[in-house]
Amino acid sequence: MRAVCVVGLGLIGGSVLRAAVRAGRPAWGVTSSTSDESAARADDFEVVSTLEAALGRAASEDALVVVAVPLPAVEGVLRTVAAVAPECWLTDVVSVKQPVADLVARVAPTTRYAGCHPMAGRAVSGWASGSAALFDDAPWVTVADEETDPAAWREAAALALDCGAHVVPTTASEHDAAVARVSHLPHILAAILAATGAGGGPLALSLAAGSFTDGTRVAGTRAELVLAMCEGNRGPLLDAVDDALGRLGAARGALASTGGLAATVRAGNAARAELLALRSTEDREEVRIDLTDVEAFDDLRSLGAGGGRVLRFEDDVAVGDLPG
Amino acid sequence: MRAVCVVGLGLIGGSVLRAAVRAGRPAWGVTSSTSDESAARADDFEVVSTLEAALGRAASEDALVVVAVPLPAVEGVLRTVAAVAPECWLTDVVSVKQPVADLVARVAPTTRYAGCHPMAGRAVSGWASGSAALFDDAPWVTVADEETDPAAWREAAALALDCGAHVVPTTASEHDAAVARVSHLPHILAAILAATGAGGGPLALSLAAGSFTDGTRVAGTRAELVLAMCEGNRGPLLDAVDDALGRLGAARGALASTGGLAATVRAGNAARAELLALRSTEDREEVRIDLTDVEAFDDLRSLGAGGGRVLRFEDDVAVGDLPG
Repeated sequence: MRAVCVVGLGLIGGSVLRAAVRAGRPAWGVTSSTSDESAARADDFEVVSTLEAALGRAASEDALVVVAVPLPAVEGVLRTVAAVAPECWLTDVVSVKQPVADLVARVAPTTRYAGCHPMAGRAVSGWASGSAALFDDAPWVTVADEETDPAAWREAAALALDCGAHVVPTTASEHDAAVARVSHLPHILAAILAATGAGGGPLALSLAAGSFTDGTRVAGTRAELVLAMCEGNRGPLLDAVDDALGRLGAARGALASTGGLAATVRAGNAARAELLALRSTEDREEVRIDLTDVEAFDDLRSLGAGGGRVLRFEDDVAVGDLPG
Repeated sequence: MRAVCVVGLGLIGGSVLRAAVRAGRPAWGVTSSTSDESAARADDFEVVSTLEAALGRAASEDALVVVAVPLPAVEGVLRTVAAVAPECWLTDVVSVKQPVADLVARVAPTTRYAGCHPMAGRAVSGWASGSAALFDDAPWVTVADEETDPAAWREAAALALDCGAHVVPTTASEHDAAVARVSHLPHILAAILAATGAGGGPLALSLAAGSFTDGTRVAGTRAELVLAMCEGNRGPLLDAVDDALGRLGAARGALASTGGLAATVRAGNAARAELLALRSTEDREEVRIDLTDVEAFDDLRSLGAGGGRVLRFEDDVAVGDLPG
């Protein structure tokens, strides 16, 4: 099994290192955080002292390098990758994909790179919060752009499966647009709802029940986490906010003119039903994609676009399923 | 203890009848639903066959009449009240208060009326869904407007306490403005979020995690319930939607110009913290209001405006608490 070098040992990186070891892979990590470093060592994981040494070993063992640092730190790591392991297998687990792809193309263009995003974030951070089981049954986006090296995609996807996740293939830009809608917009609307409720004073908050409690839960997330996440995906998030603004404006107009919110409420009903149907494990259709086919990437992207996923590889065939 | 006549035996009315009996009050109900009628009788509650008979008995026993029918049916019930029991003690548990107050003033002006709203709705309906414990520890708004008869307020508040709830005194219009923000707007924003997420196609929905699941939960509520609730409170809901639109537009503008969402996210953080602090049972300050005082209603409304509540009566003193 291919060795794994994890750069960054916070919640996600620390969980990747544990899950890779659980899968039986040779694996080591490196981190600029002395607390994560000592915590990982105390848990008997191998931590190399310097980034150069960790990446040098990756080069000599032909390992897969996993960049698991926050977006602002990615460029610095990539510069060292370009210097020490310029042709390594490379992936990353940062929550936006186009900005990282652009950095890789600019700073470390000779690496064999396919970007990833395991959808398993939580409102906690650091090595101690991680777990080998964090990714079990979670979606793990693996970018299959036109310019992605198919062999690099296969390496990244294999790691995702080894970590217990299922693979959702898509493009970097489609990923960023999707997470703007389902991961970033919810934080903004929760903040707006919380503030509008509080604008009604203590009386309004004292009358708040389940709908308000649920709708504002993620407004309690640490502001730094939310800002990093949202502001790093600014363009796609603007599109999502504009879509929401348009829908809310239309609801406002209908309420003011005819008093009728039926279109808004029924669209919400239908969308929620679609979400639950997509999550149902019944009636899913098996899909098999021959990775040696010239159109394999097209098929993989179609699979992801349809809400499908890859569950395992059988030799050169990706086996997955689609909602029925 | 004063007898109670409950008109309408759905979720809320059926629970009021059960809770009144649990408190030891003589109580009977009446309903136009044959299924609720037979279900209540099967559970050994007294159901009178006609509205006229139920209200006639209320008049002769000087009972408190509780109107627990949907808003569109209120006027018809009030016409019968005016004909059969024109001076009865009267309250209602409809989820908007100004429209009901206007109806009472027009149709049954000689009743001794104070409106209520127990904050214990659920996405189910009918006698079978009710429970004597539905209101335990829940807020129960009891309207104390300038024109409310203090004795009628006391009767309505006493029923709320007997049902296990705590009393939140406020005005009809302040109630309607508050629930627009914390009960109705959450349904609209959940519908907008669900539709905007689904607008990203199956890919987006397949990547949705906890923030989206929580934020769209009430978008699954039956459309008829949501529409009745929202459209019955149109004016105050428009104000709440406009407030949310303004905040979302400001967030959009900041994201587009400076990229910064800090103001939005931090306001959401603060509002969520305020919600949790208000719910904390620690550091609450005891409040005692002498109901024989001429300014008692002012004090009660201030209590509600500050997030406070009445927990019991000690002779002519309302004893409650305020957040610290």
